[in-house]
Amino acid sequence: METSNNSIADAVRPLPKDMSHHFSDVTKARAPSRMKEFYKYFLIPNIGQLAGGLPSASLFPFDTLEAQTARPDRWTPTPNYPDPDGTLSSRLAATSISNPTVASHVVVPHDAPTSDPRKKIDLATALQYGQADGYPPLLSFVREFTRDYLHPNVPYKGGPEVIFTVGSTDGMSKTLEVFSNVWVEGKNDIRERPGLLCEVFMYANVLTQAQPRGIQPVPIEMDDGGMLPYGPGSLEDVLANWDHSKGKRPHLLYTVTMGHNPTSGVLSLERRKELYSICSKYDVIIIEDDPYWYLQYPSAAVEEAKARNLPIPEPKIANTLEKKSGYEYLDSLAPSFLSIDVDGRVVRLDTFSKTVAPGCRMGWITSSPSICERILRVSETGTQQPSGFAQVVIAETIMGPQPEASAAFAARSAKDRATFSGWKMEGWVRWLAGLRGQYERRMNRMSKILEEHAYQLKQSTPMRGSDSDWGVITKTQLYDFKWPRGGMFLWLHMRFETHPLWKAAGSRGNLIDGVALSTALMIFLTRKPYLVLVSPGLMFSATDKIRRERGWAYYRLCFAAESEENVDSCSLRFGEGVQRFWRIKNVKELEALLDDDAQSQSQSQSQRRTQDDDGAQLVNLGSWMGC
Amino acid sequence: METSNNSIADAVRPLPKDMSHHFSDVTKARAPSRMKEFYKYFLIPNIGQLAGGLPSASLFPFDTLEAQTARPDRWTPTPNYPDPDGTLSSRLAATSISNPTVASHVVVPHDAPTSDPRKKIDLATALQYGQADGYPPLLSFVREFTRDYLHPNVPYKGGPEVIFTVGSTDGMSKTLEVFSNVWVEGKNDIRERPGLLCEVFMYANVLTQAQPRGIQPVPIEMDDGGMLPYGPGSLEDVLANWDHSKGKRPHLLYTVTMGHNPTSGVLSLERRKELYSICSKYDVIIIEDDPYWYLQYPSAAVEEAKARNLPIPEPKIANTLEKKSGYEYLDSLAPSFLSIDVDGRVVRLDTFSKTVAPGCRMGWITSSPSICERILRVSETGTQQPSGFAQVVIAETIMGPQPEASAAFAARSAKDRATFSGWKMEGWVRWLAGLRGQYERRMNRMSKILEEHAYQLKQSTPMRGSDSDWGVITKTQLYDFKWPRGGMFLWLHMRFETHPLWKAAGSRGNLIDGVALSTALMIFLTRKPYLVLVSPGLMFSATDKIRRERGWAYYRLCFAAESEENVDSCSLRFGEGVQRFWRIKNVKELEALLDDDAQSQSQSQSQRRTQDDDGAQLVNLGSWMGC
Repeated sequence: METSNNSIADAVRPLPKDMSHHFSDVTKARAPSRMKEFYKYFLIPNIGQLAGGLPSASLFPFDTLEAQTARPDRWTPTPNYPDPDGTLSSRLAATSISNPTVASHVVVPHDAPTSDPRKKIDLATALQYGQADGYPPLLSFVREFTRDYLHPNVPYKGGPEVIFTVGSTDGMSKTLEVFSNVWVEGKNDIRERPGLLCEVFMYANVLTQAQPRGIQPVPIEMDDGGMLPYGPGSLEDVLANWDHSKGKRPHLLYTVTMGHNPTSGVLSLERRKELYSICSKYDVIIIEDDPYWYLQYPSAAVEEAKARNLPIPEPKIANTLEKKSGYEYLDSLAPSFLSIDVDGRVVRLDTFSKTVAPGCRMGWITSSPSICERILRVSETGTQQPSGFAQVVIAETIMGPQPEASAAFAARSAKDRATFSGWKMEGWVRWLAGLRGQYERRMNRMSKILEEHAYQLKQSTPMRGSDSDWGVITKTQLYDFKWPRGGMFLWLHMRFETHPLWKAAGSRGNLIDGVALSTALMIFLTRKPYLVLVSPGLMFSATDKIRRERGWAYYRLCFAAESEENVDSCSLRFGEGVQRFWRIKNVKELEALLDDDAQSQSQSQSQRRTQDDDGAQLVNLGSWMGC
Repeated sequence: METSNNSIADAVRPLPKDMSHHFSDVTKARAPSRMKEFYKYFLIPNIGQLAGGLPSASLFPFDTLEAQTARPDRWTPTPNYPDPDGTLSSRLAATSISNPTVASHVVVPHDAPTSDPRKKIDLATALQYGQADGYPPLLSFVREFTRDYLHPNVPYKGGPEVIFTVGSTDGMSKTLEVFSNVWVEGKNDIRERPGLLCEVFMYANVLTQAQPRGIQPVPIEMDDGGMLPYGPGSLEDVLANWDHSKGKRPHLLYTVTMGHNPTSGVLSLERRKELYSICSKYDVIIIEDDPYWYLQYPSAAVEEAKARNLPIPEPKIANTLEKKSGYEYLDSLAPSFLSIDVDGRVVRLDTFSKTVAPGCRMGWITSSPSICERILRVSETGTQQPSGFAQVVIAETIMGPQPEASAAFAARSAKDRATFSGWKMEGWVRWLAGLRGQYERRMNRMSKILEEHAYQLKQSTPMRGSDSDWGVITKTQLYDFKWPRGGMFLWLHMRFETHPLWKAAGSRGNLIDGVALSTALMIFLTRKPYLVLVSPGLMFSATDKIRRERGWAYYRLCFAAESEENVDSCSLRFGEGVQRFWRIKNVKELEALLDDDAQSQSQSQSQRRTQDDDGAQLVNLGSWMGC
């Protein structure tokens, strides 16, 4: 695979720049493994192994691992360039074509009789101690996919390296460890305080990771298209006018660029170039966390325009870069920051959580080789490799029975042998396209229903002496939103200022402000008959200031978790609940909602304590919520 | 399970002490999850879930996970209290009784129709985002096993808590993060430098973890029975005479107590009490890392005595504590530090690596609830939960099909239904006892063969005029060792001072010292016809000083990785190689070995660089080696 895209123009491409001045003290102090010198002895043919500290693979309690797996064509894809004349309902109908019974039986044998580590897919290797960078067969597949298909345009010589993580939360944790020193208030100089550039609304779990290290979030303004490069509050603005008395000028930027969490935008190639040049100017490392990269929705702009009776936009070519993957689906997607990373300052986090399952606890980092080497040192002394169970089942599913593993292959039923040869690259890409289809249809279903509930029509009492029997019809906008261009979320801008009780004085003399309305509506929606739970924008605000000033004006709705039918009914109940909420005219009704909730809060806390003591209920809500 | 052992005497037991003064700055700064307040809404029955950020479980590509698994009685156990009159050969013969065909087919369904999270074993939950402390069914099993069977005697009120890790390297990494600040030379005061108490010979991967954080190893003298509490270089000695100009007096102690790596000893209850009281006096946290706890070898003392014609020792009762597990095998093992941990200062690391397979990347920490809570906060922002693939397959194997999961159970073949109901607690304990049998027999095989090669007999030329035709027979000891009392390693003390070339001058005028002899023999053994690789004691020395002064005098031999037949032949080749090495009388022969090796070293390094560039050969030797 080294002879493909990445080496053709290597002679003229510059190497990535040295980024080691960004490394933390701990990272700089990491010595390469002392064991390396010893490695050559392991390679002596037929050497009797009394040196290693391994248990015997013959004593593992598993003789095979097997799975009933989907075939890549289980789900029906959506078009990469949707026909503007096609109807939404015809696209939604495609769902029924999907066929969940399309399956193969996969068997991982205990021992595969090949000596090539890249083709040896068996329990004796996968369940043994292994390489911290990944299980060789799967690593080799992911590396090929990443370098040659997903990011064929990386500008620096040699192209990027990949290293497995145990999921992107782990990837982010390791990246923070590699690039930031711990800063302690009262102990360290304020001018040393590290900062993390991020969007004003963001995946807040990252702040939970950064906060104990003393890292301050530095929010950058954004619009539907993502982070703003220029203008007030933009990246350039914040970096150019940095106040050093508040901390070190940040050298790390965190961003979700494709199907932004929570705002759902996809960062265009043009804006990437602008942001990148600013990062290059101010020497900033870009951490690109893209779990939803394969979920980009070309139909959103078309359907949104149709729903609003606006001109249908031209199909957008998101990727105008030179090298193609050869897969129309992949080539239709907006490309990564890696594709323009001449300096080698991009660290990209990928995950299997959204393409296979979160329970894999498996992802990978793509970055320059020297940065990956430092991440590897962190893995070696922490997580080591991802679980062999996950790695081997996925390797076998994608790569199929290797020809050399003939005994195991022969042991399968004739039917399995006939039908199953592994997904291969083509199947993997087809699987992703099928998933995109599933989620794109859900997105359209939710958007369509919400579109229909965005306004409230009110007829005023006819004026005496008017010509008409009818009063004036007023149209109140309850919320606005963009149909999501990617990801799993719809970002709803609630227009609480149009609520009849906006800024009304409550019984305690407080004004009913945005925070109160937002919280009251969220609670109201969880009650019968609406019974629907949404995430308040307060949860995604990068700072308390943002939370206070505007976080209350947003909700994030996820269309991914529920079935298509439930997406419909939940969206409908949401729309109806909001409509009903805008008819509340009595301040006491809102106050009652908030009071009730505060009471149940303290009850639930004492309940939870009991459960915690019980040890089985310590739920990791932050990651579960994707917030 | 809360009603069993741990609550009976709770009324009179004290709570564990507050250990929060030991927490690092980062640990102190960790806020509890902000999401917790939101949790109550998730519990609303039939709530429409638009809040979470989860992918849809219906889109996971796996419909089942299955495995051909061993039944617990696959391997034959060894006696807990061996008959001193039994012969070793009869015990070795037991091998053939083991039956690798004893297997069951395990099926994890996509959806199990129960709502009890502790009994719900299916892919929809296991492959979804989950709890950072562990997959509820498996966590509940491990918690019961740990609290009620493995450590029923924990003295503090309420007993210990457990939290899953992604293996013990991860567990140690998190423990270091919780209990130590990073210290940087030149930046921080030397009097703040943290230290880690450890044995002079130790699992060196821990030092690779500690070193980049600026933690200095503080070695304590040990004997065959483990760390010395009193006397020169002992724990009490080092702590009482601490020189603060060299760093902070250590508040962390790291130790492997059962089947010590590399020295194979098992720490007795008596010595534990002594060490514990010193740790209590000096306020030291004890990190007990015991991957080999279930591998304790009662036959070692008996067979060693027989082989050396010494009096057979009385069977030793390792555990004299009050509460029993009810399983003779478990109750025969030396107990953990947890069993005497009145203060709550013990953090114990457990792993599935040696009881199931290293590729699980799964283990757990047992400690006081407040320490586990801090570990949980670290997991939430890093590894999250272990892989669902590993967790669910092991849960299903041990716990069996839950009665509620009737559809999946009914779908099995009649044979499977008849034979498979999960290992349960009894099966799990039986599996461990069977593994102990397998490894104990290997240990005895290796020890027996090494015993036979420990001496070299030499006959001197008969003196002229002597009465005898025979010269004087001298008996040279080449090495000495204890038959391992536990674990996977045999620790060989090489008597290089008896080698004919000991301290001989080489051609370069250097004396052939221990390091040269140790390295030369290690290399010599990797050559034909010996072809056997051992780990030099240099690798396990806690400091350079120890390495220089005495590390060279030891080899660690692992009897776990190779098959029983190979353990025999490798041990034999080792013994013969050592015998041959002691007949080398020409300094040049040793020098040639070392020179050859240095050359191939540089060759292999350049080879390795090529492989590294290739991305598939960055081997994590440290963990692989168990050193």
